[in-house]
Amino acid sequence: MNMRDFDHDPLIVGIDAGGTSTRATLLTRDGECLGYGRSGSGNPTSAGAQLAGESIVDAVSQALRAARRGIGEIDHVVAAMAGHGAGGEERWLVDALAVAGYDGALAFESDLLALYFSGTAEQDGYAIVSGTGAAVIRVSGGRLEATTDGAGWLLGDQGSGFWIGHRAALAAVEDMDGRGPATALTEAVLDALQVVPADFTLGYGRSAKLEGLIRTIYLGRPVELARLAPLVFAAAGEDEVARDILLRAGELLAQSFAAVHRGPGPVVVGGSVLAQDGLLSETFRRLVRDREPGARFIPVADGVVGAAALALRRAGAAVDEAGHARLTASVAAARAR
Amino acid sequence: MNMRDFDHDPLIVGIDAGGTSTRATLLTRDGECLGYGRSGSGNPTSAGAQLAGESIVDAVSQALRAARRGIGEIDHVVAAMAGHGAGGEERWLVDALAVAGYDGALAFESDLLALYFSGTAEQDGYAIVSGTGAAVIRVSGGRLEATTDGAGWLLGDQGSGFWIGHRAALAAVEDMDGRGPATALTEAVLDALQVVPADFTLGYGRSAKLEGLIRTIYLGRPVELARLAPLVFAAAGEDEVARDILLRAGELLAQSFAAVHRGPGPVVVGGSVLAQDGLLSETFRRLVRDREPGARFIPVADGVVGAAALALRRAGAAVDEAGHARLTASVAAARAR
Repeated sequence: MNMRDFDHDPLIVGIDAGGTSTRATLLTRDGECLGYGRSGSGNPTSAGAQLAGESIVDAVSQALRAARRGIGEIDHVVAAMAGHGAGGEERWLVDALAVAGYDGALAFESDLLALYFSGTAEQDGYAIVSGTGAAVIRVSGGRLEATTDGAGWLLGDQGSGFWIGHRAALAAVEDMDGRGPATALTEAVLDALQVVPADFTLGYGRSAKLEGLIRTIYLGRPVELARLAPLVFAAAGEDEVARDILLRAGELLAQSFAAVHRGPGPVVVGGSVLAQDGLLSETFRRLVRDREPGARFIPVADGVVGAAALALRRAGAAVDEAGHARLTASVAAARAR
Repeated sequence: MNMRDFDHDPLIVGIDAGGTSTRATLLTRDGECLGYGRSGSGNPTSAGAQLAGESIVDAVSQALRAARRGIGEIDHVVAAMAGHGAGGEERWLVDALAVAGYDGALAFESDLLALYFSGTAEQDGYAIVSGTGAAVIRVSGGRLEATTDGAGWLLGDQGSGFWIGHRAALAAVEDMDGRGPATALTEAVLDALQVVPADFTLGYGRSAKLEGLIRTIYLGRPVELARLAPLVFAAAGEDEVARDILLRAGELLAQSFAAVHRGPGPVVVGGSVLAQDGLLSETFRRLVRDREPGARFIPVADGVVGAAALALRRAGAAVDEAGHARLTASVAAARAR
């Protein structure tokens, strides 16, 4: 970072870069959010480095325009995202920002740590996310100390949207081939995937519908099964199989929590699965409280406030509890403008 | 089929076409095996239609050479394989055989039905296979009446080699990230996959070894996890996690059996997983006997005798119990030549 001439203190940018959307905040050193921007996928794994770089620059440019500031006024950029290298000098983002005219400091942070600091300023606690995937972290002294799960659909993501959707698909297959109980999920899954009965069967004595279901699912990517998760929430009122899936998902998320649990601290909760009230969330909270009776759950919508807090910390302006409340309010106001 | 001039009754060919290897028998109408041939993958899904056709023609040619007969002497070919259309007129095999000079009848049969008739001549019973995948069929009146599972690695194959290997990978990940108990499988899996610790971690607070394991597995195809199954059998003597995996696999295979079970009949057993003595096989047999106390288990190595029996049936020369014993002995003798 070069020190340059500024009329005022240099500005700071916090980026919450996700697989679906990217959010940027433009911040003063005392934690005022001057501008906010939002764009598409900023994750190089899901979008490719080129598109991810463009998304991030787009979100930053929007935040600058909203505040009528120029990119030369920024001296710290912090990007929170999944799957970045800990080295923190990925060329793809350095290059994308350089093309846009930025030559200040760039650092990466964990998306889960950003989620955590979206909910609290406390330096010790937990964050759990269950969206398409699922992971839990323990935060200690303000740093990510341990992670459980987050191992992806094939090796984990237990209790995630993928896990729930996969169980819905399995329940339908097992209902149709006689291994499992009848369930309302079967028709719901066939409808949602627009399964047409296979025009020929494989000589296995299976119904054309089951054959069609199996083929339809193998034509897609496994992770797409996550979109069946809402069917399970919808069916749980009437259907025992659906209820069992949600109950088990809640238990698995609590087990992942238990694996990182070491003592008291807030539990910041993110992701679409845990955002839904009902059996799954209740089961998760009950089992967490069995371990930590006074557990406070703090739901958050995303990691944008935490990415801003981490950016301020990197710039030497750490955020205390009062600062966190002001930052949260200021980001909300900038978003609403 | 055209009737042609023959010095003697026309010959019959039975083919057991698998994903790894293909076996062909050249048969007289009274069930004598004149020649035997073996080649590579004859499954168009795994090998492609071109290679699968070449494999099958290769195995048939070997059987003809062994018997010093010509392809023009054959009037029935029956190919038993997974994933064929029930229509039975797949062009890829018609064409491959035509190029080799064959213009007689061609029919397809289920690989699982061929496995069944490799073990018995009885017209009612069960076959179960657990190799890379897993499936159970019920045979009634000599026809495949119902199938359970066989739904592939993402939707089933419960208790299969894939299922066991996948559980070994999960046990290693859960051991390393603190969710699961310590297990000897962890080192065994890391060794077998030649995992090198990741040269950088993703900022998740995970060990470089766990990071390396996760990346190594996602670089491969999921179904390759089946090759971890032998580690579980090897560890089961000393390791409770491995033992639990084998116990559960045996239970799942018995559950699949229960789903097709309707009454007495022999249980023909194939595939590498159930070929191993020990906890898994014992659990499976015990639970099957809970449903059917007098259950007879008939282990078979492959579907070659059954493919021959199905070919004879298609040619109008159905095989009774005495004929089955003669056919089995005759195929064994031709294989040994």
